[in-house]
Amino acid sequence: MGFKALTGFRDFYPEKMAVRRALELAWHQASRRAGFQEFDGPVLESLELFTAKSGEEIERQLYAFSDKGDRRVALRPEMTPTLARMVAARANSLPKPIKWYCVPQFFRYERPQRGRGREFFQWNVDVIGASEAAADAEVMAVALDALRILGLGEQDVVLRVSDRRFLRRMLRSIDVEEVQESEVLGWIDKLERDATAAKRLEEILGQKRAREILAWCERMPLDQAPELAEVLGACRDYGIEAFVEPDFKIVRGLAYYTGPVWEIFDRAGELRAVAGGGRYDGLIAEFGGPDLPALGFGMGDVVLRELLQRKGLEPEPAARVEVFVVPVSPEMLKPAREVLLRLRERGVSADAPYGSPKLSKALKAADLSGARRAVLVGPDEWAEGAVRVKDLASGDERKVQLDDLD
Amino acid sequence: MGFKALTGFRDFYPEKMAVRRALELAWHQASRRAGFQEFDGPVLESLELFTAKSGEEIERQLYAFSDKGDRRVALRPEMTPTLARMVAARANSLPKPIKWYCVPQFFRYERPQRGRGREFFQWNVDVIGASEAAADAEVMAVALDALRILGLGEQDVVLRVSDRRFLRRMLRSIDVEEVQESEVLGWIDKLERDATAAKRLEEILGQKRAREILAWCERMPLDQAPELAEVLGACRDYGIEAFVEPDFKIVRGLAYYTGPVWEIFDRAGELRAVAGGGRYDGLIAEFGGPDLPALGFGMGDVVLRELLQRKGLEPEPAARVEVFVVPVSPEMLKPAREVLLRLRERGVSADAPYGSPKLSKALKAADLSGARRAVLVGPDEWAEGAVRVKDLASGDERKVQLDDLD
Repeated sequence: MGFKALTGFRDFYPEKMAVRRALELAWHQASRRAGFQEFDGPVLESLELFTAKSGEEIERQLYAFSDKGDRRVALRPEMTPTLARMVAARANSLPKPIKWYCVPQFFRYERPQRGRGREFFQWNVDVIGASEAAADAEVMAVALDALRILGLGEQDVVLRVSDRRFLRRMLRSIDVEEVQESEVLGWIDKLERDATAAKRLEEILGQKRAREILAWCERMPLDQAPELAEVLGACRDYGIEAFVEPDFKIVRGLAYYTGPVWEIFDRAGELRAVAGGGRYDGLIAEFGGPDLPALGFGMGDVVLRELLQRKGLEPEPAARVEVFVVPVSPEMLKPAREVLLRLRERGVSADAPYGSPKLSKALKAADLSGARRAVLVGPDEWAEGAVRVKDLASGDERKVQLDDLD
Repeated sequence: MGFKALTGFRDFYPEKMAVRRALELAWHQASRRAGFQEFDGPVLESLELFTAKSGEEIERQLYAFSDKGDRRVALRPEMTPTLARMVAARANSLPKPIKWYCVPQFFRYERPQRGRGREFFQWNVDVIGASEAAADAEVMAVALDALRILGLGEQDVVLRVSDRRFLRRMLRSIDVEEVQESEVLGWIDKLERDATAAKRLEEILGQKRAREILAWCERMPLDQAPELAEVLGACRDYGIEAFVEPDFKIVRGLAYYTGPVWEIFDRAGELRAVAGGGRYDGLIAEFGGPDLPALGFGMGDVVLRELLQRKGLEPEPAARVEVFVVPVSPEMLKPAREVLLRLRERGVSADAPYGSPKLSKALKAADLSGARRAVLVGPDEWAEGAVRVKDLASGDERKVQLDDLD
């Protein structure tokens, strides 16, 4: 009977789990030192929570089903609806700005492909109740801080930022109608990844207006984008200017963004975005809460891990244990267990054989455990209240009194 | 538009999330110092993985559905099938004993009731490839170690242990047929919680045999349970004898246990079991792997949290930030940001207002943040390369050079 994981789902054997935890640790560290508090919501939510803002068509991309009580439910594909629901429920009692983060797992029913499975872990950081450009810059700084903790610098990644207000104003200035806006923005967003995007813009808007759009993307008229200029100024205050570049081709897919939008890419431009976010003022109100400005970002584990691998920066899993305790003969099994308990009580990660293997076999188990040190418990030293500590890399051995062992 | 979480599912606002993480931290600590490595598997698995061993009727208690590819799938209700599947796939390359743990979320479609929702987090610890009683005692010690880390002692909790081999032998000795065994064991398991259990045993087995069963539970003939006596001896070696009591009424529900079975209860006997586990030799082979002995336990977050609450031991959430940086006037906003970044770079959790609020408002925000200290950035001190540090509990203030700030 050979069972397998479902296609698009991952088994995390210990080596892979250790890397996942190392990424999460960087996410937790960056969040906490910037004063963000962790929250979480249910993996399963009512389907309506996700279709309410994104439309019924999103259901095609969801793990949606009817539960036994005939409720339409879905595995969460993103956090913003849950965040909006939770904030809306307690909006009046929560001090503003609300600074929350989470490290949830998301699910989407898509054809699995390289770098995109049907589940992934994503770090989400959000600020609710702040309209200042400093808030936009701070969440960007938090995203970059996690990358720095993992060893990535400005030579490795770039944060490209634009602003939805500017984009809409520019489209209006060349008479793009509001009904065309999302389609046109969609093709601008694809200009770098899809060779047909420029052609599609021409078909929709005519050559003249399409060329004008391409010209902005070249010229970057920041004087006509004061909101973006303000955000870039705040980025300097937060010490991240070396990472940040304005880029009007950054649009992002979701309809709910209202201000600055940004994505972090590898400088080589080989991978999908490592992270992306923006301002979504108005969304909390649409979920039944008060009218609070809001902004945030998401960073997934899959592209980040691939980038770290390419840079030779993938975190090394720690050894299973620090110390392996070896009874040198069967009658030393009980004393060895005493040593083991003493080490564990002191917080040292330690292991020992369950039975009484031969000494050579026990030493092999010590090697396999990844321990740096073996503690050999033999009758002569034990009579003196001591053990022998062996450095498993160098082979050096020395006698240590039990009370000095740590 | 008022959205709610699904019935039986929990929103984790930051205070509640902090407690969840504190429980998880104790689980991680106890696991790691005993040499267990973390793994994880998919939240969603093929339904067949769960029905293969437990039978089709388990589907009634599962979140099971057909995905868009018409696969029958289910949200995981337990970890053992995933563990068995993963170990079976790599059994030959993994050094034995395999010592793994995980902290997954589980789902079950049941009527929500006090202390039992439709999802919960559970710590799982397993050893694969060890037949020694020392392994049984070690996993019990690991479970108790986490409880000790959380402040619970032998006066708070008790570990009750029995052995399936003994139970089966005793039933055979009074001619209980094999086909009746699981029903009879089920009622023995309920003797303490269900007033009708003794009566049901009488109906099934007759008064004489039912009384004999009750008599064992009174008398505890350990001389007839040498396997259990051996485990009790190993528990002494692992320093947990003060927590452990033999109890033949411990059976546990799952059909796959083959040796020692145990549960941890609050001493007052007011709550469901805090943890439970046992030996399940044979199961890995049934999932397509080699014939390896195996054992483990699970400890859920819900009963544990309730027990900690009753004992006044529920972990206190940490403050959102350690330090709150306050610009004393609008022109000090930029210097305040410099101080903020310096603190964060040193790993100090720090926050500051995004704009330039009035001083009184900024100090109020500092209080609300939970910070122990406020750093006041004013023009006079700043000119000397210094700031004022205010202890928010005592109100004491002192001048500190920027280079000495941490």
